Order: sequence, then structure tokens, then C-alpha cells
Amino acid sequence: MSTKDKIIKTSIELFNQHGERAITTNHIASHMGISPGNLYYHFKNKEDIIRHIFALYSEHLHTQFTPVSGHSDGFVQLSGYLDALFELMWRFHFFYDNLGDILSRDEVLKKDYIEFQSALLTQVRGIIISLRDSGLMELDDDDATELAHMLKLTVSFWTPYIKARRLSGELLQQDIYKGILKVLALFKAYAAEQSLSKLAELKEKYTQLSLQVEPA
Amino acid sequence: MSTKDKIIKTSIELFNQHGERAITTNHIASHMGISPGNLYYHFKNKEDIIRHIFALYSEHLHTQFTPVSGHSDGFVQLSGYLDALFELMWRFHFFYDNLGDILSRDEVLKKDYIEFQSALLTQVRGIIISLRDSGLMELDDDDATELAHMLKLTVSFWTPYIKARRLSGELLQQDIYKGILKVLALFKAYAAEQSLSKLAELKEKYTQLSLQVEPA
Repeated sequence: MSTKDKIIKTSIELFNQHGERAITTNHIASHMGISPGNLYYHFKNKEDIIRHIFALYSEHLHTQFTPVSGHSDGFVQLSGYLDALFELMWRFHFFYDNLGDILSRDEVLKKDYIEFQSALLTQVRGIIISLRDSGLMELDDDDATELAHMLKLTVSFWTPYIKARRLSGELLQQDIYKGILKVLALFKAYAAEQSLSKLAELKEKYTQLSLQVEPA
Repeated sequence: MSTKDKIIKTSIELFNQHGERAITTNHIASHMGISPGNLYYHFKNKEDIIRHIFALYSEHLHTQFTPVSGHSDGFVQLSGYLDALFELMWRFHFFYDNLGDILSRDEVLKKDYIEFQSALLTQVRGIIISLRDSGLMELDDDDATELAHMLKLTVSFWTPYIKARRLSGELLQQDIYKGILKVLALFKAYAAEQSLSKLAELKEKYTQLSLQVEPA
């Protein structure tokens, strides 16, 4: 792994663990055992690191969330989306924790984020329409837009919702699985009758995952 | 109106207009034309003011959101909830804008908020069950809990969701009406067949309100 990639990886780890606000470029360099000068050779400042992380995040979303193709099993696809979503919400949770603050500090990133969110809405809506057209869901075009907004809102603010309801403590993988269950509940609300048993299986799967105790 | 009530009213106005973080007790006193000493006679500090505002907010929620009673029209009640919700989200929007930050600065308020959220979940779930039992909705007990969470999450984070998607500018009443439409879409997802035409009427009402141009 290149030093540049290691800086990104370490930054994500430290931001997730301690919150993005508490971590400076000096913390990152010191944690890696490199000099601040070496870090600045690769990144201008913390904003520069965060923009690179955001690019990774956007890329993950663009490649993992593509509409259901005609001859594949819609449920296998849906299950794949939920796993990819878990991965995303877990790996980048510092970003969701502190979204407003991060965006307010960097106008370039905020512009990118707004553009990205608009493209994402279209993308998520496309997936919903493809699930409907493959017979898994029943909803009209307006409701597909509403559902796409609701899914985006739920994913973006699940971590702050959890954190506002507990006094302290780290975010755990189980917390994210509980968010995935909310996403699944939204799909279920618009499910076709014939999908309900398969959705119940998915619910059981993520409920079990949300109850697992992680190694300390 | 007593000086104490005027301080609360002015604080809510200034917090909503400029963001809670930008406003100090000195700004509040100066805006009212009273001395800081006079303000401190009524409130110890800004946290003390915010706690009083939170008490108003909780009271509004407790009194306005009670389950549908047996012999009343469920739709009239639902429409009443949505209007009360608009009032709440508009009047206290600074609180939603900056929730995590406000709570992280005041452990007493955070404890109150957590207790209140837990009671609120039960209360919202009770309303959903009452709407189901009066024949307006179709969902099982598990889904009632999921829907209660989704409603709470949507209401709490609608303002940050809007703000993260625009570069700048004040929050408008139309923005809040768009949030009410999301809440309505959640109800519609679980609506009984016989409710759909009445829900379409409510959707039309709030769509019109969300398109109105406010006086400058």
C-alpha cells in the first residue's frame, strides 16, 4: 500500500474512532510514525484528505448501487444492496456523524456533495423502479421519488439518530444493522404481496446480525 | 408578556434566524433593549434558556399528539397531527438544525432528551395503533414500531437533510411543508385501501402549501 493510501486508511480509522473534529493532520502523521512534512507532501491539509475520502465514498455508491438487470433475481440484488449499504455506513460513519459541520467548512466539498446527492437520488429511484418492474414492489412514480428521499434521509441520519439517543459510547456494527432493518422496513412498506416471505427472510438475517455481540 | 417569556420568545426568534451557535446571551439582551444583568436575573446562561425552550417543545408534543379517540374522524385527527407537526418543526427549527451539538454541550438536557425520545416513541406508536384500529392503516405491531422510528427520524432530521442539499439560504415554511409531505408518504405506505382517496386530498393540501411563495 502506498503512503498516500495508508494516510487515507489511517484517517478513516481515526475519524471513525474519535470523531473527525478531534483529529488533526498531526495526529494522523504521529499515529503512522511519519513526519508531518511527509503527510503534507501527499495532502495539502485535512480538508484535502476528507475530499479524497469523499471520492472513495462516492465511487463505492456509484459502483455498488446499479439497477436490477432483467434476468437476475431481484432479492439477491436487494440483499446485495443492503450488504453494500452496511459496508458504506460502517466504513464512513464519521462522515454521517458530523455531516453539516464538515460541509460547512469546505465550500468545494459542499458543492460536490450537493451534485452527488442529486445524482444519487436519480440512481436510487432507478433501483426502486427496477425492483418494481421486476415485480417485487408496488408503487407509482411519485411514490418512487418519495421512497428514494426517505431512503437517503434514513441512511444519512441513522448514525446521528442513534447517537442522540444514548449518553455516550462508540458506535457498533449492530447499530448499523439496526439501520439496515429500517431501510428494509421502507422496502417492505411498498412490497408486492409475493415478496413478503422473502423480505421476512432478509429481516431475520439482519435481525440476527444486529443481535451479535462483537469481540471486544 | 413577562420579561422571562419575552426572553424565551426573542431567543427562539434569533436562534432560528441566525443559528443557535451564533447567538449569545448578550445578543439576546441587546436585541430586547435590556441589560445583560436583567437577562441573568431570569436565566443563569444560554443553556438555561435552551432548557426552558426544550420544555416548551416537549409540552407541545405531549399535548398535541394524543391517540385518535373512538368516535372521532381519523382523517380529521391525522390532518390535525400534520398541522401541529408543521408548527413544531417550524417554530423550533434551530433545535433540529444543530441537535447533536446542542446536546453534546449539556449533559442534563441530553438526559432529558433521551427520556423524552423514549416516551415519544411510545406515544407515536400509540397514535399509529389507534389509526390502524380505526381502520385507516394496515400494519402489524412490529411495523408500527418501525414506522414510529421512521417518523421520528424524518421529523428530527428533515431540516439538516434540506440544508445539506443547498449551498446557503434561510429555511422557509415551504421547506417544512415538504417534510410534512414525507411524513404523509410514510403514512400512505401503510394505508388501508379505503384511506387512499382521503390521503390524496391531504397530499394535495400540503403540496399547495409547499408551493406558496412567502412574503419577503
